[in-house]
Amino acid sequence: MHIDMSYGSGGKQTTSLINEVFVKHFSNPTLEKMEDSAVLTVKEKIAFTTDSFVVTPMFFKGGDIGKVAVCGTVNDLLMMGANPKYLTTGFIIEEGADLNELERIAASMAMTAKEAGVQIVAGDTKVIEGKGGIYINTSGIGEIEKEGISISSCKEGDVILLSGNLGEHHAAIMSHRMEIENDIKSDCAPLKEIVLNLIAAGIDIHCMRDVTRGGLATVLNEVSSSSACKVVIEEKALPVSPQVEGFCDILGLDPLYMANEGKLIAVVPKADADKALQVMKASKYGENAAIIGKIENGTKVIMATPFGGNRVIDVLYGEGLPRIC
Amino acid sequence: MHIDMSYGSGGKQTTSLINEVFVKHFSNPTLEKMEDSAVLTVKEKIAFTTDSFVVTPMFFKGGDIGKVAVCGTVNDLLMMGANPKYLTTGFIIEEGADLNELERIAASMAMTAKEAGVQIVAGDTKVIEGKGGIYINTSGIGEIEKEGISISSCKEGDVILLSGNLGEHHAAIMSHRMEIENDIKSDCAPLKEIVLNLIAAGIDIHCMRDVTRGGLATVLNEVSSSSACKVVIEEKALPVSPQVEGFCDILGLDPLYMANEGKLIAVVPKADADKALQVMKASKYGENAAIIGKIENGTKVIMATPFGGNRVIDVLYGEGLPRIC
Repeated sequence: MHIDMSYGSGGKQTTSLINEVFVKHFSNPTLEKMEDSAVLTVKEKIAFTTDSFVVTPMFFKGGDIGKVAVCGTVNDLLMMGANPKYLTTGFIIEEGADLNELERIAASMAMTAKEAGVQIVAGDTKVIEGKGGIYINTSGIGEIEKEGISISSCKEGDVILLSGNLGEHHAAIMSHRMEIENDIKSDCAPLKEIVLNLIAAGIDIHCMRDVTRGGLATVLNEVSSSSACKVVIEEKALPVSPQVEGFCDILGLDPLYMANEGKLIAVVPKADADKALQVMKASKYGENAAIIGKIENGTKVIMATPFGGNRVIDVLYGEGLPRIC
Repeated sequence: MHIDMSYGSGGKQTTSLINEVFVKHFSNPTLEKMEDSAVLTVKEKIAFTTDSFVVTPMFFKGGDIGKVAVCGTVNDLLMMGANPKYLTTGFIIEEGADLNELERIAASMAMTAKEAGVQIVAGDTKVIEGKGGIYINTSGIGEIEKEGISISSCKEGDVILLSGNLGEHHAAIMSHRMEIENDIKSDCAPLKEIVLNLIAAGIDIHCMRDVTRGGLATVLNEVSSSSACKVVIEEKALPVSPQVEGFCDILGLDPLYMANEGKLIAVVPKADADKALQVMKASKYGENAAIIGKIENGTKVIMATPFGGNRVIDVLYGEGLPRIC
């Protein structure tokens, strides 16, 4: 069965779509009340964020647009030291979208939300003309567990950790589009365990960022400009799987600019770095974590190459890969 | 200048778009921090909601997609007795969209947010292929000022008030699309003053709903089914402007099924009804408020016609008008 424009009318078909797909899968007492807003009780200090997802194809190795939509917003909350609690979701559905695919996406969102410990408490559905595509916005609220984490808090001497292998989401999407057969899966994942374990271990996290569109290069440049510091990383310390490395070699891609959906950097005081690395490695999705560099006085992002050279790493310019997330 | 795919890359162009359009207009200390999430201090009891907007044309008499996007979410928060505080906004922009139009939309959102007393504290931008359209999601947080307001709280004997004239948003959009010249303006407006004044006056509001897609008929049916009651309205009590009435007569439209973007119903105890009406009439956007009906024991929505008849009012079935909000 396919969605037509009447499913966006706000009338009978909209209600049946909401009940038979969204309420069925996202089921919880708040959502089922069908009020104009969810009424919630939260701690005084919260994090609040939003993200829209337009990834194509909608289903790919290691995930789908629904999984990415939940992970993306959950991870943005975690990066501010918040424990993700509640999500809303807004669907913009192109006419002709397949109802079974929509239901698979909703089921995947529900499963990922369960893993991340968040409830989907409100939603909205619109239908537009088009070719059967689905766009998803998720917004989220988390309760702050550790205050003061900020992109502008990095200090000279701090150490930079990366939670795992670079480039996997990007390589998986690109492989699918180019019909290249390989075993590369998207890394898309909720990073709750890594973050909450770091906080519970008492690590004095100065800054965290998830590494998504624009890749590690762009994130590190944001650190450098917001914290007014120099970022120095070691090329040989960057974790990349042999499959992704091979993929990049063939296509001339640089893992530094490739998108991930389940990786973060954490910037911590030098004294906490080894413990932070142990905690990451012992956490789900953190087994390939590595110390990749440090913060110095100065400006720019510099990468030390294995041959003793230094390369200035700029932000992504132009289009990496359209509709990657 | 037009937006191309590189503006969605997450790199340099995305940053320039964010700074030159969104940060410029939405300017506030939280947004300017450019963190992954906004960190906020709120009361313990909050309302949380989301809405996506796909209205076409993007500019119309009385408003634009940006104004509607702010009003829609602000009003959904108000309907639960919450004072709207913070919004996020997610833009999905089709390649070829005009940068000046995007900036006009952002400016309109900023102005409406100011009127509604909300801050836009986080955002996201994606670019997709297409024909220059712009889709906007807004999600919002409000602080609960009055608890217990619910679509399921209507009681026998309660009185139903409508805050003003029906059908204006629908008629304005339709006039624009059909190139019919008239003076009908969209009613899109933030209903903060009406709601906060009702609460401040001590009105024991049982239920509020804004009257949007699906029209008054659909909202009243939601009241009837959620509160397990009969809803009885008087046709002659329904406020409709002469312009909209004439428009409906010519095109065979029924104001009961037409979308509004600045109207609400409030269901209150009979003892509070006259005072509630006075408060509404004295509030901005409430000057045409009217008592339109009451809650009885039973089921269904019934409208008493001026000729002594009774008509059963069902929800909207099929498509009212695509992409109305």
